[in-house]
Parts: sequence; C-alpha cells; structure tokens
Amino acid sequence: MGLDKTVAGLAQALAEAGLRDGMTLSFHHHLRNGDGVLNMALDGASSLGVKGLKVAASSIFPVHAPLVGHVKNGTVTDLDVNYMSGPVADLVSSGGVSSTVTFRTHGGRPRAIESGELSVDIAVIAAPTCDCRGNISGVIGPSACGSLGYAMADAAHAKTVIAVTDNLISRVVPASIDQSLVDIVVPVGSIGDPSGIVSGTTKIPRNPVALTIARYAASAIDASGLWREGVSFQTGAGGASLATALYLREIMVDRGFRGSFAMGGITSQMVRFLEDGLVDNLYDVQCFDLDAVRSLGVNRGHVEVSASLYASPGNKGPLVDDLDVVILGAAEIDLDFNVNVHTDSSGRIIGGSGGHSDTAAGAKLTVVVAPLVRARLPMVVDRVIAVSTPGSTVDLLVTERGMAVNPSRPELKEALERAGLPVFSIGHLRDIALSMTGIPEEVRPQGRVVAEVEYRDGRIIDRIRAIE
Amino acid sequence: MGLDKTVAGLAQALAEAGLRDGMTLSFHHHLRNGDGVLNMALDGASSLGVKGLKVAASSIFPVHAPLVGHVKNGTVTDLDVNYMSGPVADLVSSGGVSSTVTFRTHGGRPRAIESGELSVDIAVIAAPTCDCRGNISGVIGPSACGSLGYAMADAAHAKTVIAVTDNLISRVVPASIDQSLVDIVVPVGSIGDPSGIVSGTTKIPRNPVALTIARYAASAIDASGLWREGVSFQTGAGGASLATALYLREIMVDRGFRGSFAMGGITSQMVRFLEDGLVDNLYDVQCFDLDAVRSLGVNRGHVEVSASLYASPGNKGPLVDDLDVVILGAAEIDLDFNVNVHTDSSGRIIGGSGGHSDTAAGAKLTVVVAPLVRARLPMVVDRVIAVSTPGSTVDLLVTERGMAVNPSRPELKEALERAGLPVFSIGHLRDIALSMTGIPEEVRPQGRVVAEVEYRDGRIIDRIRAIE
Repeated sequence: MGLDKTVAGLAQALAEAGLRDGMTLSFHHHLRNGDGVLNMALDGASSLGVKGLKVAASSIFPVHAPLVGHVKNGTVTDLDVNYMSGPVADLVSSGGVSSTVTFRTHGGRPRAIESGELSVDIAVIAAPTCDCRGNISGVIGPSACGSLGYAMADAAHAKTVIAVTDNLISRVVPASIDQSLVDIVVPVGSIGDPSGIVSGTTKIPRNPVALTIARYAASAIDASGLWREGVSFQTGAGGASLATALYLREIMVDRGFRGSFAMGGITSQMVRFLEDGLVDNLYDVQCFDLDAVRSLGVNRGHVEVSASLYASPGNKGPLVDDLDVVILGAAEIDLDFNVNVHTDSSGRIIGGSGGHSDTAAGAKLTVVVAPLVRARLPMVVDRVIAVSTPGSTVDLLVTERGMAVNPSRPELKEALERAGLPVFSIGHLRDIALSMTGIPEEVRPQGRVVAEVEYRDGRIIDRIRAIE
Repeated sequence: MGLDKTVAGLAQALAEAGLRDGMTLSFHHHLRNGDGVLNMALDGASSLGVKGLKVAASSIFPVHAPLVGHVKNGTVTDLDVNYMSGPVADLVSSGGVSSTVTFRTHGGRPRAIESGELSVDIAVIAAPTCDCRGNISGVIGPSACGSLGYAMADAAHAKTVIAVTDNLISRVVPASIDQSLVDIVVPVGSIGDPSGIVSGTTKIPRNPVALTIARYAASAIDASGLWREGVSFQTGAGGASLATALYLREIMVDRGFRGSFAMGGITSQMVRFLEDGLVDNLYDVQCFDLDAVRSLGVNRGHVEVSASLYASPGNKGPLVDDLDVVILGAAEIDLDFNVNVHTDSSGRIIGGSGGHSDTAAGAKLTVVVAPLVRARLPMVVDRVIAVSTPGSTVDLLVTERGMAVNPSRPELKEALERAGLPVFSIGHLRDIALSMTGIPEEVRPQGRVVAEVEYRDGRIIDRIRAIE
C-alpha cells in the first residue's frame, strides 16, 4: 500500500490532527443537502469534549440541523460561510449564535484562505472516492458529486487535511486533490445521502411567470449585442435562469454560432451546450446533477476548476473576469440595483452570496431575473434588507412585467428600447409591484447584528440583524 | 479577448514586472537543450542594465552558453540549479562564478520554493502553448515538451509570472498552469529548437556492456521479490536503464502480471508499458520524447504531476515515497555506496542530482547501474568527489562484472545469492576496477568551494571545489 494514511473513525482522526478548543474546521458543500460529513465531524469533535470551534463551511444546508445542537452546547461558537439555509440559518436569525457570523462569497473565501486571513486548522473533505494516500476524486463513487472546486483552497492551505470517504479504492488517477496535500484518510460507511447530493436531472420550469421572465431576459441579452460568436456565460439552476438559457440556446442554433465557455454550477443543460458543440468548454466549480458528474468524467472540454480560479479577486485573473453574461436571481433588489440574496423580505436568513457578487463584478452584463412579486411581497424595494451584491455591478433587472436598466448603462437601455423591449425605470417596477401587493408593513429586523456580509475583496458591505 | 495580459517583448515584460538589481529569476528546463527562453530573458534583463541577478533554473544545458557572458558582465551573479552541464558548468568548475552555486534536487527545489526558502521574484515560463490570459499547456505547439511539472511551484509562488510562448491560441483547456497564476504573456517567434527539446524516440542501446548490466539488474530486481503484481517503478533514459526496463517488461509479460505505475521523466518505453496495459498509470514530471508528449495528450492514465507532488519531502506525501524500485545511474560510487552524479572523476561539474537522491530516498529498492570502468577510470572509488546521494539510500550497485549490496540490506544480499547472481563486496568491485585501470592519479579538486550540494531536505551534504 505504500503511504497508508488511513485512520479508523473521524474522532480518532481529529484527535491525531491535534484538535483543540478554539480551532477552525473547514468543510466544502459539494454534497449539498445530502452531506453527512460535517455532522459526523462535529459529532466527533463533540465526543472529544472540544469547545469553541469555528466552522468555516462553504455552505450550510438543512441537513446540517445537528449543528444547532453543537452551537447550543458550546462545541461550536463561530460560523464562517458563503451560504446557509435551514435550521442553522434560523438559529442565526433568531440570535442563537452569540458571535457574529461571517458571510463570504465563493471567490472571497479562497481569497481569504490563500491570503491567510481565514486560517484553517483542519480541513475535513468529503471524498466521494479516495485512496489510502489521500488522492481524491469526486467523479466516481456511490456519493459522487463531480467537481470539488470549493475544497481546493482548504486542501492547499489548511494545517491538517482529513479526507473522509465511503469509496476507498487502490489508486485514484486523476486526483482532484492529491496526496501531497492530505494528512489523514478516514474510511466510513457513507459520506452522504446521494438523493440530497445531486438531482437526477435539472428540470426546465413550466411556470408561466418564469417563462415570461426568461423570454424577456433572453431577448434583452440578445439585444445587448453580447450573445454572439465566442460568448461566455453563466446561468444558475433556478427556474427562470434555466429557461433563459433554453431561449438563448435557440438563438445560437438558429443563427448558427457557438459560444466559448459556460461555467459555475454545472447542470445537464450546460452539458448539452458542450456535447452539442455550442460551447467549447465548461468550467465546473460544482456539479448540480448526475449528468454534469458524468460529463466531467468523460468530456475533455469539461474541466474542474478551483473556487479561486473561478472567482477569487485575490489571484492574477479569475474566470469570472472573462464572463460576458451572467444570469442571477434575487430575493430583493432595490432602487440602486443592490441585490439581497441573504434574507427573505422579513429579514430571515435564507441563503448567501455564493458566487452572486463575484460573477456580477466580473461579467460584462449582469442580469438579475426574478418575479416582481413573491409570496405577496414586492421583490423590488426601496432599500434591500441586506446588500449581497452592490448595485454598481448589476446592469439589468428582468421581471415578468418588464425590465429596468441600471442608469450607469445608458447605452444598454437604448439597445433594449431599440429592440422594442418593455424597459422602465426601476422605480416604476417598484410601483407596479406595490400596486399588486399594497404597501407592505416595514419589517426590517431590529435585533443585534448577527452576521456581517463580507464582499469578495474583504470589505464588510452590510450587517444582518436578528429578528426579534 | 477578456483578460489580455500580452506584452510585446521580454525586456518590456521584465520592466513591467519591476525587474531590479539583485532579483531572483526562475526558469524550468522542459525544453532542455532546445530552450531559447532563458537566454532571451537574460538578454532582456541585460538590455535593461540590471545587475546582480540570481538565476534559479531547474537545469542548465549547453544551449545556455550565453549565460557565461551574463555572469562575466555582472548581469548574473548567483546560480541555483538542480543540474548543469556545458559551458556554464565549466565556468563554475573553473571558479568563474564568484558566489557559491546552490545545487538542489528536483524535490528539494519545490520544497524550498513552497517554504519560502527560495524566494522567486520573477518566474519566466517557457510556454509551448498559451492564451492571452496566461493559461499554459506543454502538450501542443511547435515547441511542445509535454509535462510542465518543474515549472509549477515557480508559477504558484513567484511574485510575478511571465509566460513566453510561440503558440498563442484563443483558449487553452485544460491548462497545466492557469491564468490565476500568470501576470504577463509574451508572444515570441520561437521559444526553442524542437530538435533539442525532445528526441523523436528513445533508443534501447546495443552496447554489450550496457546489456550485461541490464540483464544483471533485471535479474536482481526480480530476485528482490518486488517485481510483482502492482509494482511501481522509475527508470531513467540512460542506456543501461532503458535496457533493464526492457528485460523487466519481458518478465511481466511472461508471468502475466501488471504494475501499478511508472514515473519520472517519461519515455516512449514507459508509454508502451501504459498502452500495453502493463501499468495503470504514468506520473509525468517531464517528457523525454515525442511519444511521451503525444501520450500525455491522449491517455487518461498518463498524468502530469508537479515536481512537488513528484518528489518534495516538504509536502504530505510525494509520489517517490510510493516507489518500489528505482534504477539510477552514477558517475562514481564509493565504498559507502555514496553516489556522485555532480562531477566526473576529475571533479569537473557535469550534472547534478535531478531526482536522483529524491527517488533513492523514497524507493524500497534503489538500484544503481553503471559500467565498472569509464574512460579508463574506475567508477567504484574509495571516496566520491561529491556526495549527490547518500549511500544510506542506495541498496544495490550493478556493474557488468557483478553487483554489490549495501551491508544495511543483508536480506537483499541473501536473496540475490540464492538466485545465483554474482554478488561481491563493493570493495571487491573496486579492486576489479583497479585491476583494469591501474591505480589512477588522485585528482580531487583543490580550489575554493564553488558549489554546495543541498540535500532534498535543505541540509548541505557536500561542497564542490574549483578545478585549479
């Protein structure tokens, strides 16, 4: 076996890694709501009697509900995340975490790790396939998740790296994270629940509001002049975004041109772009479905990228800086085009930046797609509850009732108007929303600051308060 | 074009990189004796009037003769290399470089760069193919050299990284070194002379001495018990080494077993092992011929590795630690099994460690193959002129007149004797050599110290003196 780094059990591994009170443990979120590793590691830490840990997890999902207990018993005192939803987010919103949570972005997190600003003592890496030396791949195994892009900075910079795997094989080649970075390998029965990791396939919505938004968005992107030979783009896995990409694809096929690359979280839809020859490359920081996982394993043009290469403003040229078009969602957008993806309209934490502000900063055209009204509340507001993405990096809002262009982009506004698209001021869209919802009760959270929103470059751009 | 980092001319690029007196410039040697980039960069530096540079080049070849002039005019004052041959080596041996040269190993160099011990101001990377953002591949282009393993630590850690390319294409995917690491791209007419970069094919020798050594070596490796299902190995590109691998291959085929991996500098011979299903993987830090370059581009099992992953003792598990068998050469070997690959028998510098001491330290069985007499001088000596690889890491010497086992490996000696192989004490082999050559004049260089031999872990294990 040569270099055998296997250790029986995560608690034992954490003990060997020298886990002590106050340390920082990091986790990646490619297993999403199927992840079993974060809970397993914190149970292990708790069994060792350790207190005051910081959990630096790229994202936290409902499956991580047991973390609530670890906060309550003092095992964990600090959270550093790019995104959180579910019971842990609710705990933070209710003021149940006494320290202030740091919200980063997908690009800001590797920047902070690489610069030493976020120092990780122990990185715990969920490894869908691993060998005894610590060579890791996400492409195969019962819990295959595809790309391991978010774990790469952690693996490269943490003092100790523990790989946790439910598929120990004799040798992993090629490795996404290699043996030169990994200290300990822990074989376990299961690292997660495959049904929560990736969906079998990502479905295009039939919801008429989403389809209307998508038609408008595709037309606007086309009218911008950027949807042309060699275009690079990122679309999300949300319904309107998927539908927009479908319309954009039709434009490509009809006019017979090809894009250069698509990137971000990769869906089967993007795989179709690649396999049908409509783009040359997919840059993949995370796979959203099984088809993306398969493609990453077989297509030379589909490459795994680190979160740093994807989006960090600290390196010499992240891929986001090369984006022509990005399509993003929003929980709220305000009259200055600031976007909130951290909280819902009541101020409750429901997400986080992820790569939202990174791609918005990099892309030539940042399009926010969202329904004008959601749960009987206006999506366009005077002032967002939390600024996730500064309005200066958002060019266009598209809703089912029309679109609004950032005043800093008059030439874009002209182009859309020339194309006969329904362009309004964002204030007008707010008024339409209010006419549908009535003026809602002002519900800005008034509690203490429970979280800080750190922009990708390290500046704190907003603070989130507890709901009282 | 998005992120366009192109700059016209290396002098301009060096100026933009802030080149100043006393800085350290690094270079990689995959273009070997066909490299045009080191000379071009130093001409550029010289044209800027800069003085006192340190050249940290993984290797220096005869093609780098113009460096002699740059030393003489003071542009370059310090050399930090893993290997050197030709006019620059002669200059050092004659005392023509006033500072002491640091000789490192292929694993020690990335260790020193990653730890900050060797701080590189500007890495100049010969890029067989590159895009304007700095994504680099060695697999295609008129000067294709295959793996870029030795350049990776430089690219990751140098303050400024300049890629020099003669094949600027629209987008490089996959990239061996990516845009997040590269500051400046310099398109030039040619980065080198392809005929000096890689040979068309690596030939097995017909020389009877080499074939005898190879037969003995293969039999000894077989008798050691390590040549079995799953074996991992590294062989060099020297004649006896190539022939040994040929015999070892026959043993595999005859007995119907397979190895796990071969690694190091990769030749067409190793590609045959892979493509004939005799090993699962090739770990490639450098391609020695065009067939290796081709294979790296098409075979999933043939993967490029960094010099750090290959051999650094500073990381969490270099590949050399997983080697069963390595076959190495020697200019001299002494009664303590210390090997000299830095100088010839007269003390003139003719090479350097490369990966010699790294693989010797890692492998379960380190075999040195060499003719007992070379240029009418004994290869086995009382005391080597320079210790490149400590005898404690060498297990077996094989010559055409018999073999000698390190006394620290009595069980190996027994196994070889049981197999009926001609095993002698190393003193006896020295005596045979002396009986052939007569007692040579003692010619240890007596000049000042011109170079230090740094072991892979950073310890200075020997000093090389000038020839007077």
